Amino acid sequence: MINAYAAHKPGGKLERFEYDPGILADDHVEIDVEYCGICHSDLSVLNNEWGFTQYPLVPGHEVVGLISSVGSNVKNLKLGQRVGAGWHAGYCMTCDKCMNGEHNLCSKAQGIIVGHHGGFADKVRVQSASAIPLPEGMDVASAGPLFCGGITVFTPIYDSGLKPTAKVGVIGIGGLGHMALGFLNKWGCEVTAFTSSEDKMKEAIELGAHKTVNSRDPEALAAVAGQYDLIISTVNVKLDWNAYLQTLTQRGCLHLVGAVLEPLDISVFNLMGAQRSVSSSPVGSPATIATMLDFAARHDIRPTIEEFPMSQVNEALDHLRSGKARYRIVLKNS
Amino acid sequence: MINAYAAHKPGGKLERFEYDPGILADDHVEIDVEYCGICHSDLSVLNNEWGFTQYPLVPGHEVVGLISSVGSNVKNLKLGQRVGAGWHAGYCMTCDKCMNGEHNLCSKAQGIIVGHHGGFADKVRVQSASAIPLPEGMDVASAGPLFCGGITVFTPIYDSGLKPTAKVGVIGIGGLGHMALGFLNKWGCEVTAFTSSEDKMKEAIELGAHKTVNSRDPEALAAVAGQYDLIISTVNVKLDWNAYLQTLTQRGCLHLVGAVLEPLDISVFNLMGAQRSVSSSPVGSPATIATMLDFAARHDIRPTIEEFPMSQVNEALDHLRSGKARYRIVLKNS
Repeated sequence: MINAYAAHKPGGKLERFEYDPGILADDHVEIDVEYCGICHSDLSVLNNEWGFTQYPLVPGHEVVGLISSVGSNVKNLKLGQRVGAGWHAGYCMTCDKCMNGEHNLCSKAQGIIVGHHGGFADKVRVQSASAIPLPEGMDVASAGPLFCGGITVFTPIYDSGLKPTAKVGVIGIGGLGHMALGFLNKWGCEVTAFTSSEDKMKEAIELGAHKTVNSRDPEALAAVAGQYDLIISTVNVKLDWNAYLQTLTQRGCLHLVGAVLEPLDISVFNLMGAQRSVSSSPVGSPATIATMLDFAARHDIRPTIEEFPMSQVNEALDHLRSGKARYRIVLKNS
Repeated sequence: MINAYAAHKPGGKLERFEYDPGILADDHVEIDVEYCGICHSDLSVLNNEWGFTQYPLVPGHEVVGLISSVGSNVKNLKLGQRVGAGWHAGYCMTCDKCMNGEHNLCSKAQGIIVGHHGGFADKVRVQSASAIPLPEGMDVASAGPLFCGGITVFTPIYDSGLKPTAKVGVIGIGGLGHMALGFLNKWGCEVTAFTSSEDKMKEAIELGAHKTVNSRDPEALAAVAGQYDLIISTVNVKLDWNAYLQTLTQRGCLHLVGAVLEPLDISVFNLMGAQRSVSSSPVGSPATIATMLDFAARHDIRPTIEEFPMSQVNEALDHLRSGKARYRIVLKNS
């Protein structure tokens, strides 16, 4: 049996929940959860904001732990190995996307908290392709958030062919944005943090930004017109996207990793004249996660975390809801 | 003196207009205009739809002709050489974009019909960097439209790293779209034409499309969900962009070359899950124009044109306004 925390209705409080995971599938592993990060999308799914939540819901998709059991057909992992798992618990493994190393774009990818029980538990099971070994020497307590928030901001950096000579902006310095600053700094770029919080402006510099811009000041935005090769937006609220497009240089890209519900209302003229683009992406592939972990370990890029015991999951969720988390919350199993 | 046709007010009829171009600049050439295509953006500028028109306006930015005079500092062109010129009459030549071969993104690029007199005339002057020699054997009468309409649709094909294995859609089979079909067919792609016109569906196949889809039929769009690596939209009216995004495969791109005035109202979710993007571009660089001309000549890709004498420019504009042009109108000087 697996001892987890589950919600039974939209927005419901998490309660102790025991379930029988059945026989371990041939290609799956079971992980003894040491730590599990809390992501804003755990809240979105808990509240059924995206309309696909199944209850009882066991959230948690930033898992780090030790492999406690391996399926009979698993060849890439072994008992006792420390791994992490993120948004996906498995892939079809044979569609053109999987075969092309783009497993995160597999249309049959299994969400770890969508019709599957996640990491707010003592154990969790995932397909072995979804469990990525932690590199030697990586800090264990803070590694979980790399598996969703980290890979979400790393993917556009890695996939876009971004050169270290580029100027890059990050909108929103929170759970995702603070990791983006660290990655981009070590990538060699000139990094600008867009935030409306005075406190965070100072912290953004410590986290890797070279400059800060007040994200809600139209004059400050106008003053950086035509500057950035890439802007990664991590916020999930509507901003003045056309104003941000104008801060891009020619061929610049506005890449959205925040799940904004309102349409983007983009003017074609803000794209056309300077050959700009708007894009988005979902987490990242297992291969990119492994590459990111290696890069993070080599440069000691680690999420800034606040730790809560797993038993205080509801208090931890309240802390996330309050907007005061600095910057990522991690639950620890005792 | 140059004998041209000019409008003196928004939407005004073109009238004979003589102007003195002054001394030929060191780095400019004068072209005896043989042919000049008419582009929909000539109408947009004539009507001051984009707000920057200066009158008297001499439209015409798809020029083909023979060099009749060269500036003292021109080294790349010679008297009597046949060249074409498109949207731009010159560039700053030294900004980072010009130095990088992206002259069309130069913020100081001189529009040939924006504060400058265009090709509805017996002569036109442009900077020598803007006049591109026609390849040996290229059809002269139909070459003009390549210099604006042609390069506008060729740029996203060329710049996007598009592989001949790709599936590509073209929305709108008109002045721009019909050339896109020809380029994409010879590029080796599987080409689908999106059009609402029954007549054009048949013609699109002759022009290079392998398949056609009724662009205004939601069921037809739904039936091609997840298909295309690239869609080039040439229309300047609002469509159901989110429906088109859903016809893109993973990492697919919707590229807009039509100047749609309404905001794009794109849902982030239609971008995020499949890592799609939306982009746009303005015409193309002189280097890309030369590459396009070489490709067009080699594959005998030529715009389908209707010829009018230059003296019937108003009748020709009316024909364009009627929506009945098949597919590009070219004015011929006698």
